[in-house]
Amino acid sequence: MSLPRIAVDAMGGDEGVRVMVEGAALARRSHDKFKFLLVGDQARIEAALEDHPNMRGASEILHCDDVISGDEQPTRAIRRAKTTSMGLAVNAVKEGAAGAAVSAGNTGALMAISKIALRTMPGIDRPALAALMPTLEPHDVVMLDLGANTEADARNLLQFAVMGAAYSRIVNGFEKPVVRLLNIGTEEIKGTDALRDAAAHLTAASAKNEGGLALQFDGFVESDKINRGETHVVVTDGFSGNIALKAIEGSARFVTDLLKQAFTSSLRSKIGFLVSRPATELLRHHLDPNNHNGAVFLGLNGVVVKSHGSANAKGVAHAVTVAARLLEDKLTERIAHDLNELGAAALKENGNGTAPGSEALA
Amino acid sequence: MSLPRIAVDAMGGDEGVRVMVEGAALARRSHDKFKFLLVGDQARIEAALEDHPNMRGASEILHCDDVISGDEQPTRAIRRAKTTSMGLAVNAVKEGAAGAAVSAGNTGALMAISKIALRTMPGIDRPALAALMPTLEPHDVVMLDLGANTEADARNLLQFAVMGAAYSRIVNGFEKPVVRLLNIGTEEIKGTDALRDAAAHLTAASAKNEGGLALQFDGFVESDKINRGETHVVVTDGFSGNIALKAIEGSARFVTDLLKQAFTSSLRSKIGFLVSRPATELLRHHLDPNNHNGAVFLGLNGVVVKSHGSANAKGVAHAVTVAARLLEDKLTERIAHDLNELGAAALKENGNGTAPGSEALA
Repeated sequence: MSLPRIAVDAMGGDEGVRVMVEGAALARRSHDKFKFLLVGDQARIEAALEDHPNMRGASEILHCDDVISGDEQPTRAIRRAKTTSMGLAVNAVKEGAAGAAVSAGNTGALMAISKIALRTMPGIDRPALAALMPTLEPHDVVMLDLGANTEADARNLLQFAVMGAAYSRIVNGFEKPVVRLLNIGTEEIKGTDALRDAAAHLTAASAKNEGGLALQFDGFVESDKINRGETHVVVTDGFSGNIALKAIEGSARFVTDLLKQAFTSSLRSKIGFLVSRPATELLRHHLDPNNHNGAVFLGLNGVVVKSHGSANAKGVAHAVTVAARLLEDKLTERIAHDLNELGAAALKENGNGTAPGSEALA
Repeated sequence: MSLPRIAVDAMGGDEGVRVMVEGAALARRSHDKFKFLLVGDQARIEAALEDHPNMRGASEILHCDDVISGDEQPTRAIRRAKTTSMGLAVNAVKEGAAGAAVSAGNTGALMAISKIALRTMPGIDRPALAALMPTLEPHDVVMLDLGANTEADARNLLQFAVMGAAYSRIVNGFEKPVVRLLNIGTEEIKGTDALRDAAAHLTAASAKNEGGLALQFDGFVESDKINRGETHVVVTDGFSGNIALKAIEGSARFVTDLLKQAFTSSLRSKIGFLVSRPATELLRHHLDPNNHNGAVFLGLNGVVVKSHGSANAKGVAHAVTVAARLLEDKLTERIAHDLNELGAAALKENGNGTAPGSEALA
């Protein structure tokens, strides 16, 4: 099967053209069927390509010299979609010139441009941003929404559950990912009405359709358990998800900073550090965001992957590979199919965010 | 000055009477003016006291043999306030038999019992739960609300800011603690209406009353910066606060678990671990929740401190010392005074959660 090519915004991100091209080349070393549309300044892309003979014949350049800046307002970015590398990369997906787009640029601008160019898929009210995070287990956990929507009602949360499960199945290979709603306690009475309604509907759907449902719903999860690995998909609104994601990142950095301080506090500890370096390298590898890079805008008519602004070539390669797998495994079609199984369409028609049948379960 | 005694719920928490009494005795070793009302089973308290001659003459026992369980519903706990160690400890504050209460029991029950017995102080609409967390700096950061209120409007957030700043001043000794609102970005347009309104009011109040205001408001903070130490008080609603707190705890545990795995993965790393033990002990000490123990219900007519359910004697001693300092420094009176300075009373009268003058600032 030939894979549609991947449009890479070569100009977005802090690291510039060289790292984006190197990342694409690195991904291609493991997957030689990958093909690319590299969007950005032709001369700089050509210069970067010279170091990567494995990209010859596998990449086309779409020239443009304008770039969306890191702090550009989404409203302004939208107006500049036709002349910027980010806008043209997403547009290539809309026009069918590429199957997926990868950008390391401004998240808000990428979301806004993608929503307008690709539009929300049928059955989804609002797209969501989903990311991968490390766990104690070999697999990553998927968390969404991470900030595309400040608030979410029960219907949004259900749709996020379906989209997140599809992402987890493709990236981590689970047949029925364990899905939980992020809450401040695990008892049924905890949290907001939206959370309780979403939980009631997911529980009812699981009971009715145990065989066909593409996820296992298992109630609420608290944020101290996100990284344990027992939950495969953590579903929440964009405000709480953003708070949880950044709290986890900040706390991990805090502990590793303390560790560095401790290891350099005496000669003895410096020696201990050198001796145990292979162990701390293991830790560093496990926590390295480049090994978990590739947040995805789920719920659009097309695949758009956001690479960390500061990702290195390995990180870009990871994001490109995520995009390719989502394409290959037909993410959008899977979501459409699973939404149907969940009966989320019925919830949608209900229109008030309350799960049908949730009264009976209360 | 003689300090009012501290009522200790000797029966709450996972560790039982012995640890609560040992904790009180440990606190008294550094502060010999502390006096206690120990509430719980007389025989067990007397047995525990035998190991601590420094408690002789400094403690009275209030006997009761009933205890609020860890999973008891707040509504049931309220009905049992007159017969349980937690209820009687809080009641002692209400009756003036003690100045403050410390309990390691069920948080929800302690909040409910405290609200009913002590009532919310004038000028405060809703009490909040505030805790201390470690930072890269020598001082702790205060974060509130951590779950007393699932939602918070602008007026609640302002009151939390005042209460958290008073707590930070007393515990960390800052004259004007740096206060920030937790948000998903630092730009003015980010977040909910409640956050933007609260920010506008705090900004206006700071400009008007720079000299008199007992805090420095400095806009929004994202959750990855909570532990950096640049912010002294992080203000948020109970849902987001609980998500952030537990995400930080879970992530710190995740990293230290990975570190343990790494250090035991080979003989070499085990040796490195032994050599660098003093360094990793420093880290353990810094992260040990017992050194930051003592969450406080702010906004009540009286001081109630929640000790971690699993705190050891050192942790209990820390919570007891926090309670004593809040008493000594007249927490409640400070909050009343600072509320006035902020003009939060005006916001209260406005009644719709919108900051007066926020239109002018928009």
